Amino acid sequence: MSKKIILLGATGSIGVQTADIIREHPEQFTLTGFSAGRNIELAKEFIKEFKPEIVCMQSEQDAGTLRGEFPQTAFVSGNEGLIETAVYDADVLVNAVTGSVGLEPTLEAIKLGRTIAIANKETLVTAGHLVMESAKRYGAAILPVDSEHSALFQSLNGEKIEQATKLILTASGGSFRDSTRADLKNVTVEEALNHPNWSMGAKITIDSATMVNKGLEVIEANVLFNFGYDDIEVLLHRESIIHSMVEFRDTSVMAQLGTPDMRVPIQYALTYPDRLERPNAKRLNLAEIGKLHFQPMDYERFHALQLAFDAGRTGGTMTTVLNAANEQAVAMFLKKEIKFLQIEELIERAMMAHNPIASPDLETILQVDSETRKAVQNMLK
Amino acid sequence: MSKKIILLGATGSIGVQTADIIREHPEQFTLTGFSAGRNIELAKEFIKEFKPEIVCMQSEQDAGTLRGEFPQTAFVSGNEGLIETAVYDADVLVNAVTGSVGLEPTLEAIKLGRTIAIANKETLVTAGHLVMESAKRYGAAILPVDSEHSALFQSLNGEKIEQATKLILTASGGSFRDSTRADLKNVTVEEALNHPNWSMGAKITIDSATMVNKGLEVIEANVLFNFGYDDIEVLLHRESIIHSMVEFRDTSVMAQLGTPDMRVPIQYALTYPDRLERPNAKRLNLAEIGKLHFQPMDYERFHALQLAFDAGRTGGTMTTVLNAANEQAVAMFLKKEIKFLQIEELIERAMMAHNPIASPDLETILQVDSETRKAVQNMLK
Repeated sequence: MSKKIILLGATGSIGVQTADIIREHPEQFTLTGFSAGRNIELAKEFIKEFKPEIVCMQSEQDAGTLRGEFPQTAFVSGNEGLIETAVYDADVLVNAVTGSVGLEPTLEAIKLGRTIAIANKETLVTAGHLVMESAKRYGAAILPVDSEHSALFQSLNGEKIEQATKLILTASGGSFRDSTRADLKNVTVEEALNHPNWSMGAKITIDSATMVNKGLEVIEANVLFNFGYDDIEVLLHRESIIHSMVEFRDTSVMAQLGTPDMRVPIQYALTYPDRLERPNAKRLNLAEIGKLHFQPMDYERFHALQLAFDAGRTGGTMTTVLNAANEQAVAMFLKKEIKFLQIEELIERAMMAHNPIASPDLETILQVDSETRKAVQNMLK
Repeated sequence: MSKKIILLGATGSIGVQTADIIREHPEQFTLTGFSAGRNIELAKEFIKEFKPEIVCMQSEQDAGTLRGEFPQTAFVSGNEGLIETAVYDADVLVNAVTGSVGLEPTLEAIKLGRTIAIANKETLVTAGHLVMESAKRYGAAILPVDSEHSALFQSLNGEKIEQATKLILTASGGSFRDSTRADLKNVTVEEALNHPNWSMGAKITIDSATMVNKGLEVIEANVLFNFGYDDIEVLLHRESIIHSMVEFRDTSVMAQLGTPDMRVPIQYALTYPDRLERPNAKRLNLAEIGKLHFQPMDYERFHALQLAFDAGRTGGTMTTVLNAANEQAVAMFLKKEIKFLQIEELIERAMMAHNPIASPDLETILQVDSETRKAVQNMLK
């Protein structure tokens, strides 16, 4: 039986790769609906190819244009349209939008008990406790799409989680893994966008270079697997072959490995607990690779990762501040309004200025998110 | 509730380490019985410490001596005594004897539906089809103790085996991993006994140096997991940190890692599907290790491994010949009657002289085993 998929963020990097998988397995999956932000050209291609029932565009104007051209499809728009798409009849909701805009649609789909394949880490970072509590209450499965969390999830397969003692997240080190802090002062946007192992969107590539991405992943791991921050370790592993590991109390370590290819964890989230063929994927050949390297994480060199651990340990709205400040700062860096090292500087300033609120509700989270973005925007004025 | 353990081969390397685990977890395990070969001193220590109900010695004379000293324990001897011990009331039978002497006791315990933790690879290599058919028929679980097979077993945990595409056994390369074939001509017994990573018995250490051990493991993997020889790969990995891996059809590779310590897989076989603490064990620290190395296997350099694949592909009694010829040749090498490279030469000659019999019964296997040993013994006369 074909699984019906709703894909939020279809035109981003994860979205396009999710579409690849649906295309490769037409018997297994049907793309029932998607959101496409402002990318009307790619939306048109996907509508022609997948014939979805519902499509959400960011602007009502784009939705209107498409409505005229594709009378068989329902078009919606804006944040309300995104929620409408998220709760549309489906077996799996893939949340692949970037930023905290993915939060409300996810919470609404959870209320319907939907299986959520979550690539939108900001949802878990800003409101992890709401998502996980709600998922438990409504019996919704939350499946990770990030390669690291998918690796942890796979390493926990068939195991009792209370017998696991440590989550070990691997980090490639990003675009500047071999640079000193002095080197980082004047790096350009173009240099930061050149990731050595993974082909990803702009925001996450910058987050990899600052190591904020690994920080968000640490918080995400805390939320998804309910592990304390003392039991989550980050290990530098430049080849990105071991995607992450779990240590158990008998000292055994289980790991998931593979050639870096986001389609593998995306597909796993769609097929779990089964595995499907990946017909054209490059198989891992360790003999050819020859060596895998590991280094302890340097928290002074990668100061933003320390900030993420600090935010996680503080908890409450502090992780929302970390995430919102980072989103705003990265946007400013991509527009060349600030320098690379100012990203972490702005995050730290936002965190220092914030008085955290414990167990925040959705309204509080959205308010802190919005206030933080404004504050960061005005910090340099 | 405490698990009752019967331990065949208590005084060998695996046996002593199994005793360590029972000692570390007195609430979890009771050593109900064991066999101790000719090692009467260690047998006495174990009897005082564990107060077993039954003990088997190789000679009736040793059994008689102990009978006088320990009136609370039943003493048996010889091959019949070994069978009597194997079928004694227990939850798990650990078969840690060396050589094909472990075969009949295992088959008898299987008939009682016992869980068998099998470290005695010769049993699976010489009579794998009988063991697995019988285990299926009587509902006996066969749990691997070898670190490689335990790693495969753990990597398959929670997975569907039909979705696995390849078993990848790692090999350290043994005592002579950096030697050429020319270097091997005049190596001594003492040099061969010096394994770089694992502390093991003499026979298996020589088998590691000749790579016959890896060959036996390939055959064992074929038997335990029902994978064809084309889907079993051997990868040189000098650090013995990744103990083995399983590739799945989605290109994901699951692996089990750890500091080389046989007590981890032994304990896992005793506790499966649970994991218990290993209080004093060294945890894996990849940042400290720094690099893991991988090389393709060189089948000309390690000719004995090629012979094992050949024997496995031929099947029938050919694997019995491989194993018996090897046991005889290793015994001769340890007695300094032959040179190191003659071990594989004698195996090859025994295989070439043999006319394999398909699906042999136990009697045929034992006969071929015995004939092969005699033939190898006489080959150099």
